[in-house]
Amino acid sequence: MKKTFKKQILIAHGVNLDLLGQREPEIYGTASLVSIEADLRRLNPGLAQVFAIEAAELSFYQSNHEGQFLDKLSEGWDGAVINPGAWTHTSLALADRLAGLELPFSEVHLSNIAKREAFRHHSYSAPHAIGVCFGFGVASYVCGLSGLYAFFAKQP
Amino acid sequence: MKKTFKKQILIAHGVNLDLLGQREPEIYGTASLVSIEADLRRLNPGLAQVFAIEAAELSFYQSNHEGQFLDKLSEGWDGAVINPGAWTHTSLALADRLAGLELPFSEVHLSNIAKREAFRHHSYSAPHAIGVCFGFGVASYVCGLSGLYAFFAKQP
Amino acid sequence: MKKTFKKQILIAHGVNLDLLGQREPEIYGTASLVSIEADLRRLNPGLAQVFAIEAAELSFYQSNHEGQFLDKLSEGWDGAVINPGAWTHTSLALADRLAGLELPFSEVHLSNIAKREAFRHHSYSAPHAIGVCFGFGVASYVCGLSGLYAFFAKQP
Amino acid sequence: MKKTFKKQILIAHGVNLDLLGQREPEIYGTASLVSIEADLRRLNPGLAQVFAIEAAELSFYQSNHEGQFLDKLSEGWDGAVINPGAWTHTSLALADRLAGLELPFSEVHLSNIAKREAFRHHSYSAPHAIGVCFGFGVASYVCGLSGLYAFFAKQP
Amino acid sequence: MKKTFKKQILIAHGVNLDLLGQREPEIYGTASLVSIEADLRRLNPGLAQVFAIEAAELSFYQSNHEGQFLDKLSEGWDGAVINPGAWTHTSLALADRLAGLELPFSEVHLSNIAKREAFRHHSYSAPHAIGVCFGFGVASYVCGLSGLYAFFAKQP
Amino acid sequence: MKKTFKKQILIAHGVNLDLLGQREPEIYGTASLVSIEADLRRLNPGLAQVFAIEAAELSFYQSNHEGQFLDKLSEGWDGAVINPGAWTHTSLALADRLAGLELPFSEVHLSNIAKREAFRHHSYSAPHAIGVCFGFGVASYVCGLSGLYAFFAKQP
Amino acid sequence: MKKTFKKQILIAHGVNLDLLGQREPEIYGTASLVSIEADLRRLNPGLAQVFAIEAAELSFYQSNHEGQFLDKLSEGWDGAVINPGAWTHTSLALADRLAGLELPFSEVHLSNIAKREAFRHHSYSAPHAIGVCFGFGVASYVCGLSGLYAFFAKQP
Amino acid sequence: MKKTFKKQILIAHGVNLDLLGQREPEIYGTASLVSIEADLRRLNPGLAQVFAIEAAELSFYQSNHEGQFLDKLSEGWDGAVINPGAWTHTSLALADRLAGLELPFSEVHLSNIAKREAFRHHSYSAPHAIGVCFGFGVASYVCGLSGLYAFFAKQP
Amino acid sequence: MKKTFKKQILIAHGVNLDLLGQREPEIYGTASLVSIEADLRRLNPGLAQVFAIEAAELSFYQSNHEGQFLDKLSEGWDGAVINPGAWTHTSLALADRLAGLELPFSEVHLSNIAKREAFRHHSYSAPHAIGVCFGFGVASYVCGLSGLYAFFAKQP
Amino acid sequence: MKKTFKKQILIAHGVNLDLLGQREPEIYGTASLVSIEADLRRLNPGLAQVFAIEAAELSFYQSNHEGQFLDKLSEGWDGAVINPGAWTHTSLALADRLAGLELPFSEVHLSNIAKREAFRHHSYSAPHAIGVCFGFGVASYVCGLSGLYAFFAKQP
Amino acid sequence: MKKTFKKQILIAHGVNLDLLGQREPEIYGTASLVSIEADLRRLNPGLAQVFAIEAAELSFYQSNHEGQFLDKLSEGWDGAVINPGAWTHTSLALADRLAGLELPFSEVHLSNIAKREAFRHHSYSAPHAIGVCFGFGVASYVCGLSGLYAFFAKQP
Amino acid sequence: MKKTFKKQILIAHGVNLDLLGQREPEIYGTASLVSIEADLRRLNPGLAQVFAIEAAELSFYQSNHEGQFLDKLSEGWDGAVINPGAWTHTSLALADRLAGLELPFSEVHLSNIAKREAFRHHSYSAPHAIGVCFGFGVASYVCGLSGLYAFFAKQP
Repeated sequence: MKKTFKKQILIAHGVNLDLLGQREPEIYGTASLVSIEADLRRLNPGLAQVFAIEAAELSFYQSNHEGQFLDKLSEGWDGAVINPGAWTHTSLALADRLAGLELPFSEVHLSNIAKREAFRHHSYSAPHAIGVCFGFGVASYVCGLSGLYAFFAKQP
Repeated sequence: MKKTFKKQILIAHGVNLDLLGQREPEIYGTASLVSIEADLRRLNPGLAQVFAIEAAELSFYQSNHEGQFLDKLSEGWDGAVINPGAWTHTSLALADRLAGLELPFSEVHLSNIAKREAFRHHSYSAPHAIGVCFGFGVASYVCGLSGLYAFFAKQP
Repeated sequence: MKKTFKKQILIAHGVNLDLLGQREPEIYGTASLVSIEADLRRLNPGLAQVFAIEAAELSFYQSNHEGQFLDKLSEGWDGAVINPGAWTHTSLALADRLAGLELPFSEVHLSNIAKREAFRHHSYSAPHAIGVCFGFGVASYVCGLSGLYAFFAKQP
Repeated sequence: MKKTFKKQILIAHGVNLDLLGQREPEIYGTASLVSIEADLRRLNPGLAQVFAIEAAELSFYQSNHEGQFLDKLSEGWDGAVINPGAWTHTSLALADRLAGLELPFSEVHLSNIAKREAFRHHSYSAPHAIGVCFGFGVASYVCGLSGLYAFFAKQP
Repeated sequence: MKKTFKKQILIAHGVNLDLLGQREPEIYGTASLVSIEADLRRLNPGLAQVFAIEAAELSFYQSNHEGQFLDKLSEGWDGAVINPGAWTHTSLALADRLAGLELPFSEVHLSNIAKREAFRHHSYSAPHAIGVCFGFGVASYVCGLSGLYAFFAKQP
Repeated sequence: MKKTFKKQILIAHGVNLDLLGQREPEIYGTASLVSIEADLRRLNPGLAQVFAIEAAELSFYQSNHEGQFLDKLSEGWDGAVINPGAWTHTSLALADRLAGLELPFSEVHLSNIAKREAFRHHSYSAPHAIGVCFGFGVASYVCGLSGLYAFFAKQP
Repeated sequence: MKKTFKKQILIAHGVNLDLLGQREPEIYGTASLVSIEADLRRLNPGLAQVFAIEAAELSFYQSNHEGQFLDKLSEGWDGAVINPGAWTHTSLALADRLAGLELPFSEVHLSNIAKREAFRHHSYSAPHAIGVCFGFGVASYVCGLSGLYAFFAKQP
Repeated sequence: MKKTFKKQILIAHGVNLDLLGQREPEIYGTASLVSIEADLRRLNPGLAQVFAIEAAELSFYQSNHEGQFLDKLSEGWDGAVINPGAWTHTSLALADRLAGLELPFSEVHLSNIAKREAFRHHSYSAPHAIGVCFGFGVASYVCGLSGLYAFFAKQP
Repeated sequence: MKKTFKKQILIAHGVNLDLLGQREPEIYGTASLVSIEADLRRLNPGLAQVFAIEAAELSFYQSNHEGQFLDKLSEGWDGAVINPGAWTHTSLALADRLAGLELPFSEVHLSNIAKREAFRHHSYSAPHAIGVCFGFGVASYVCGLSGLYAFFAKQP
Repeated sequence: MKKTFKKQILIAHGVNLDLLGQREPEIYGTASLVSIEADLRRLNPGLAQVFAIEAAELSFYQSNHEGQFLDKLSEGWDGAVINPGAWTHTSLALADRLAGLELPFSEVHLSNIAKREAFRHHSYSAPHAIGVCFGFGVASYVCGLSGLYAFFAKQP
Repeated sequence: MKKTFKKQILIAHGVNLDLLGQREPEIYGTASLVSIEADLRRLNPGLAQVFAIEAAELSFYQSNHEGQFLDKLSEGWDGAVINPGAWTHTSLALADRLAGLELPFSEVHLSNIAKREAFRHHSYSAPHAIGVCFGFGVASYVCGLSGLYAFFAKQP
Repeated sequence: MKKTFKKQILIAHGVNLDLLGQREPEIYGTASLVSIEADLRRLNPGLAQVFAIEAAELSFYQSNHEGQFLDKLSEGWDGAVINPGAWTHTSLALADRLAGLELPFSEVHLSNIAKREAFRHHSYSAPHAIGVCFGFGVASYVCGLSGLYAFFAKQP
């Protein structure tokens, strides 16, 4: 039967997100990576239920090392929710890899990048995503996971 | 008690969205406004539950007349999920009104605008939104509503 | 038999074309909408004959209200000759609708927009037209109708 | 005698100016359309006297509907003081109409648009105005009316 | 009597149009220069009749040699229908000559240049034309000839 | 009592305005600096009365020497009406000084700079002004003085 | 048998390459067209052997006359190695012809155009080439021929 | 002795200059190529005398064929006065040849290109000239010849 | 008789030209202002003779003070040869004054500004000049004076 | 004797090239790094023979870690063939290192970057390469190695 | 007492600075990282004395691995002198981290980046620095350390 | 002996720096020119000692008159520390003079211009400086003087 095993979803935080919760709360809020993980694990079953599919297994990862981040993405995930941080705007390497891997992913950002500096308005990776959510704070991750579940639900 | 009355949320579809489901399904999918309304009404209680708040009353609206659309936004809503269609990229009037009304809203787009023409990469209204979701098809509305519920849940 | 009924063609004049003939004759000429209608009705049978097809039924419309103009286009025309006026250069909404409706149309302009201000050199709608004619004054409409007839003549 | 009848001047407020006085007072001040009308009616006779001409009849109008606004301008006014709001920067249709009507008008803005976003630094309509006044708050309307009176006073 | 002699019209095909009909039919269609000539000769009398003037003598010319093309234009034509091909976008020399000769001409293009590469959206010669027709395939020539006839018909 | 002494207002004409009235009347009109001074002195009491405040003492100054102009601005004025001429568009030094001095001033221009060369559309100093008036000819100074009086009238 | 006849390859040098070897050796080296021909004829058999295919017949051509150069390309070659010289950056006509002819060709440049003026960084023709080699001096031609042989070797 | 033979100077007129004197006299004046030749031949001895050198032999040439023009430049001239016409702004081929030939030349233009269209403000060839003269009408050629004589006079 | 009094010509050197001859001889040559004056005085009679007019009285002026330079230009000269130095590229004030004074002048530059930094390719003043000469070193002044004499010779 | 030891050449594949052969074969072809290595090792002796020099020792390297890639380049290679992948367009660090190391290298790309997105048209590293080859698929490496051999062959 | 423990200052050299002293001395000078460390250690006490504060403990670090460099910055330094090398211009990740860490730092560059390529004129990190010093060679580090000491001296 | 006489260093403050200490302390700090002079005189001997050279004689100068400022620079200084104020970004005249004089100077700015308006990010004069220091407040002058001393110390 097709859904015997749970889907494996990577929640990947890119560069500088290790600083989350300690710094610049006026931009990024007060949540830390730990609390984001807790929130997502808690909401995960409910979200899956909304889209009438089995909740996926969530794995969390953060790195400031682009090469390691790229390698991580190749580990055979069924889907991903990715906040690339500053790499969003500068890393063609990340975008090319996501295009190459054909990994279904949601791109998320904590802040509303549309009201920040002009160089944050362009994302190299967004064209390769299923969809993009930004501005909702931690809820951007929740929205991104929802979108991924909706995508899975539509797959035959 | 603060939450005696249900919150009133406007789900507003802008210009040309009356064509949805009949045209260009390769870009916008096969859902019609009717099926989007049905989907959102069906998922609404579950979504609210995920964020542990009372489900809001949803009202649906579409117009190709910018002036009527602007007037609609002033009717005292508690929040909105708005897909401005082409106005996203050309209507400073809509953006200014949203900024002026201080209406909490999610901006949503069916298609992944990041992979379409360059003139669709800029949104006048996005800087005034709580957050933005695009690319997930009809699920963009669901994500946008989630983000709005998350916003309400954080309000004191 | 396929061509039992006459084709219905909309001749649509966009914003400010109600002023035609009264103002700025050095740019737009001295013809009014009334005389354009008369000219087209008079030349219509001859033009159709040139392309060896049955003359279509011509309907004329002008509006300064974008929303009404957009709605008008959805009334099931077989083809259209459209002079969008200033909307040519600013209305992505009009262009998207024309793309969505898949309505065969000729875009026409009275003046030679190539020798006017730079912002008139770009047309949002032109990429969705069968073809474009401009600079010939009222004869632009005639050329546009010719092009539409040529298009019909090539259809199987 | 030439000045038997009072000149008819339209004071026209464009899109979103219905919100005035309720929102964003740090940008637009605390005056409402009602108080602007009262101020202008009160100062009108004195201003006319400064330029030694008869005070004009002032009519006030506001609309969020571009088509209606355009139609309003064609009603045969002797002059106008126009605050086009957001249309200033996006509506070529409005600018073309003002150019076509050859209506003597002052363009006014409440805020100092020179210190706001770059897209507010360009006005489609300003080249067709007698002159432009901005930044003085409600007094921008007063300045605009002064400029119009000065223009009338110079006419033979 | 003014119209004793037939007007001499040059139908001039610029660079690479010798390849027409053999190559890239998805862009340029399947017609060859020979069939275009045949079509125009066949439709010529009917078109002239539509504009109630005497049909002109049509001469056809194609060259890949810019200098020869420029020299050809000086041979004293009454009018021209010109498809400059790639020179449209790069040859200021051609545009300057057309401006200098004051030769009444229609500029035509087979394809809809508005939906092709950005560098095809600008034409050096278009500002010097009576008018421009593009996108109708071979019918662009017909439209261009119509526009020229309309121009002749308006001449005193 | 706060308003015992008259306010001191500088009417400052920048570079090349010494040529006024002798040259290019089609752009700048026929008024000379002398007649502008006469006009403003004549209208001054009436204008002050419109805004219900005491008429200020007006001082007039013109210089082609930027350094002297900058020094002049520091002489302790209560307000100023400044036409910086060409410095408007090139002198960051003037703009910085005006920002530094926190001198309330109106920026004025005789001609409608919005319909002149593109490099005249940007003003370094305008963001530091109370407001800007242009296009009304000499009446631009009158409007600028009005705006300054309106500003004084609103001060506590 | 498919490869009975040798393939015919055109080695085409564009505008100004007649000056090679006499001028600006610091940019273009000291080789002349004669020595390039000699080099390529000498290396030709070895190169073909590397790619395990039969050596082609090489024909050499240079012209400063764009029209003649364009005509030359239509003579039915199996492939080409083309150094368009300055036309690389300005001749859309050449690029369109290469696109139209569907002639397999390598584009080559003697100098490293990436370190020269910005206007040499763009090539109209490169997108239509199999591949591009530049910077290796005369060896760019050798590389270009290699690439063409590799292309032939992959053909069924 | 070094100056036994007269220097050979080419006076070269580029594309469209064959039209000179017949067309657009408001831009290019009323002189024809014949009268320019006559003027230069007449002034030549006097000019040479001003710079205290022997008058050169002047040869005159005009072509609309770029390839022929390029070939002409290689015929071993001691210097040249070149008016490239429209090629100034579009022909990198001409500029590269002039750079390659190391031919001392003055670039001249009849009209003041600084007050014409923006695309006439850039010259590909000017950086390779000794100097440039424009705007003086026929006298631009005289100035250009003067500059060339001054250059010769400084040579050892 | 019209030419009783000699024409008065100002030879005006702008900012930093006091440094001439001492600094950066690789760009500006080794001539000083003194030697330029000597050269021009020596060649002046011969040049006038070439154009068959009376030699003008030459006055020489240099200043690093823009205001003084501007004032100098208003002293009633019949013509001028002006090297504005760096002001060429930054001083709209100088350009406006030259436009306002309607002083016939030649603009000259010692160096070939077309091969220097991009910001030296634009001149604010050039559009107002009779003509422009640059790149010939000191001979640029001679060329400029020639052009001015040619202009005088053409005046009725 | 100078060439006692074989030259050491690094064949370096940058970021994401580990995915080669598995993904997007329509852009990058079906070859894997393993097959590229095999091809180059096989052709290496023949290529060296074409240029009449001793075949070099080839070492192959791939990394997604920019820092490790940079370090690798410093290991004392005699030359390199480098496909930097996405770093081509974003890594100034790589370009600076290549400039600093003065390592003779060929830059290669599998795809024809001239027909891909605009941001792939610029290469930071290309100006520091001997030469560049792209578009030939795996043969780009062969061409790059050829160019390197040609470079070695020219060294004294 | 507040200053019991020495302040800890990181002197961080970014990508490619390991090559210092061996390569391109015409740009970067002949100093190596070792000699920079020696110089700074030697001058450190004297500099501190100039600003009348206790000399800090200096730690030196270089890496070509961005991720490691980012991690290094989080180790709790009191201040830093950072030469980011090429990352200055491309690494938004570094800039964001410096903004997030609120680490007081001086940005330094050995060369005068204002006279190098345009892409070196922009620094992502500079807006987050206390101040920036460049162009002084090794002395840029000394200046940067001075600025940091001055900053510490002003802290309460 | 080479260093018998003290070096003469000019500390030059450009336009508007006379306002220092009175205005906009949030940007420029609270120091006045007087206190800057006092600080530099006090720290001067210590700084010189750090670089092991004799302390220079410091002279201080401020002007709002560009011409006087330019003249001042020619008075034969051994070096300078220059804060050009707004002229930094607009005065090509100043930059050219500094280039011409070959005066060793440090450019300094009080504020961190990298985080201010975009037009302050470019400096005309910086490419001609030894080095640049900005953002450290008054300490920018100290850093600039340090850099100058370091430069002197390296001179033979």
